Amino acid sequence: MTRFTSGATTDVLVVGGGIIGLAVAWRARQRGLGVVVADPAPGGGAAQVAAGMLAPVTELQYGEEPLLRLGMASNERYAAFTAELEEASGLPTGYRACGTLAVALDSDDREELRELHAFHRRLGLDSAWLTGRECRKLEPMLAPGVRGGLHVADDHQVDGRRLAAALVAACERAGVLLHRAEAVELLVAGGRATGARLSTGELLGAGQVVLAAGPRSHLLPGLPEGVLPPVRPVKGQILRLRVPEAYRPFLSRNVRAVVRGQHLYLVPREDGELVIGATSEEQGYDTTVTAGGVYELLRDAHELVPGITELPLVETSAGLRPGSPDNAPLLGPTALPGLVAATGHYRNGVLLTPVTGDLLAEYLATGATPPLAAPFSPGRFAAGPPAAAAVPAGAAPSDLSTPAKALA
Amino acid sequence: MTRFTSGATTDVLVVGGGIIGLAVAWRARQRGLGVVVADPAPGGGAAQVAAGMLAPVTELQYGEEPLLRLGMASNERYAAFTAELEEASGLPTGYRACGTLAVALDSDDREELRELHAFHRRLGLDSAWLTGRECRKLEPMLAPGVRGGLHVADDHQVDGRRLAAALVAACERAGVLLHRAEAVELLVAGGRATGARLSTGELLGAGQVVLAAGPRSHLLPGLPEGVLPPVRPVKGQILRLRVPEAYRPFLSRNVRAVVRGQHLYLVPREDGELVIGATSEEQGYDTTVTAGGVYELLRDAHELVPGITELPLVETSAGLRPGSPDNAPLLGPTALPGLVAATGHYRNGVLLTPVTGDLLAEYLATGATPPLAAPFSPGRFAAGPPAAAAVPAGAAPSDLSTPAKALA
Repeated sequence: MTRFTSGATTDVLVVGGGIIGLAVAWRARQRGLGVVVADPAPGGGAAQVAAGMLAPVTELQYGEEPLLRLGMASNERYAAFTAELEEASGLPTGYRACGTLAVALDSDDREELRELHAFHRRLGLDSAWLTGRECRKLEPMLAPGVRGGLHVADDHQVDGRRLAAALVAACERAGVLLHRAEAVELLVAGGRATGARLSTGELLGAGQVVLAAGPRSHLLPGLPEGVLPPVRPVKGQILRLRVPEAYRPFLSRNVRAVVRGQHLYLVPREDGELVIGATSEEQGYDTTVTAGGVYELLRDAHELVPGITELPLVETSAGLRPGSPDNAPLLGPTALPGLVAATGHYRNGVLLTPVTGDLLAEYLATGATPPLAAPFSPGRFAAGPPAAAAVPAGAAPSDLSTPAKALA
Repeated sequence: MTRFTSGATTDVLVVGGGIIGLAVAWRARQRGLGVVVADPAPGGGAAQVAAGMLAPVTELQYGEEPLLRLGMASNERYAAFTAELEEASGLPTGYRACGTLAVALDSDDREELRELHAFHRRLGLDSAWLTGRECRKLEPMLAPGVRGGLHVADDHQVDGRRLAAALVAACERAGVLLHRAEAVELLVAGGRATGARLSTGELLGAGQVVLAAGPRSHLLPGLPEGVLPPVRPVKGQILRLRVPEAYRPFLSRNVRAVVRGQHLYLVPREDGELVIGATSEEQGYDTTVTAGGVYELLRDAHELVPGITELPLVETSAGLRPGSPDNAPLLGPTALPGLVAATGHYRNGVLLTPVTGDLLAEYLATGATPPLAAPFSPGRFAAGPPAAAAVPAGAAPSDLSTPAKALA
């Protein structure tokens, strides 16, 4: 039997202190559980790079209704979640209820957006079709060539960096212990996860272990084979520009399009930061900013909003999204008793943070899986074909052009 | 009469410790003069951003023979200058005798390069015409569309940052006093420059004052009107990429072209850094890196060397070149006795550093203007039309496309 370091046991050990792990920790602590987060740098991870667009409606695609429901549920919680978090942490989150305009640059794009619009209407979602002229009236900086667009009033934004900092502070204030060390081994005894060994050598016992280590979740030594599907890293490069006072408002809402098959979005923050994202590259655990990534983002953004050329380029960065085999998150108990997953959020980590915190805390406190989480069971890959949560095979995940492709 | 701070007098006070000021200081000190350099951060300035291409031949244009002679003289001194500097400072300068390949991307470019080649031959300069295939044999990463080029064996490179650091060290070792403060006023008494007031309040007396403050030279308070022509700031944005070991040698020599009317050059350093420059923007004292500047450099470099997209983008930066009214440097005594100019080097500051140091030290030590410096007298603007040193009116300075335009 494992001997835990003297006194070092807790109800819940969260492995990985990105925004997902922190939200789970904060919410679990609010349920009265003792919670420890193990992470060398809590608040880091993909949120440091994310644009923070909250876009369940504009990112919708066929075959994804459970994920849509999850995203919508999280989106609906966002205003209250950030208000509570700002109160609890004393820090701003940059939540901005600005809406999103998805535009088409050519007639093919327009056709696809029209199909998405029809799909929205069938699902009873609120989106409005605009002509190119109407788009430019909303956002005068848009290229003259914009052919039409969808205005989604409820797709908003948050600042991933501020969100992470607020979660760190809220956790600390709530009594979550942030253990600034890496979990280097999952401890398993009697067919059950019992804690983790930390890089400090400490052995930390826990009633339940939450694996929230993003694209490194399945790599935790000690994790028995087959318990967690691989979570692959999907690199995203992103740019941060600054809108000088004289140019404001440059954009008033999130603006997105599909340019040359790539998702492009411009997310204007209230403080004048303008985030342009993002590439999507599958080449392992590499976070290098490349000339090509920056070039493509600037080229495509320039096509969509030519005036960006005047803006200062402040930062270029790259992060890794955690992608599960079906690109939907892994939420809830695994086949290994005592081990719970909260990872695989792919492009939706920021959006899904509130609902993930709520659902996982519910499970950790009660032992019952909430219905909203059920389609995202980590065990869904064990039994043959992907479950309903899955993205259709062969479809580019969350690609605006997917409806047509998925139907083809 | 000005009262100098007790004991604070020197033979030569150099205002501005960029590479030009430091080279003058070092060389003057070697002549036995007492030298003080006033600069809050010696070794800073445009050299921190410069690509460091030493290209008097590939940058040649009609009407510029005196500047060509000056550039050639400096280029010829570079190997010995950097060897001596490395010895004196104990630091590397990154001097690399690699040659330069100027290529044409279309038939117009080719025609202009052919004219430049003919001009080289008339002047007895060493350059070789290559077909597109021969260019790609030298540099296999070049775009398939390259139509031909000029190989100039004697146009090399140096690392501006290393050069600056070596000059700082050499000055210190040689006994130049680096006064880390700003000169805030030129002191003038009896119709003669007598020193400067520093930001510390100190009054520093000097037998001769060298103005080497780049694009801020003419702004020094106390400078009588008409003594120095305006030196305008010409912004250059530049990128630094890194060539991973596995990709080396990516380029083996400087590669340049004119793309959409802009000079583009790729300067591969021996340590794997690849510098891509540079924009040329006249908009005051602004060193903001813009989305548009970075975009254009990446777009044009990608057209010339498509494989750059794979390389990490490490740094973006912007600096200010000091441009005189005719874009040729201001070297030697001014109309104000005791005040000597060493500024206005525009795009040629790194190239002209050795010769400027030599010529100015000669003048400071002997009071005689060396013949090579004569065409660059700061007084040349006082007497009507620009002198022989000038770039033809209406020509883009140092533009490879200039021969045709200047003749038109």
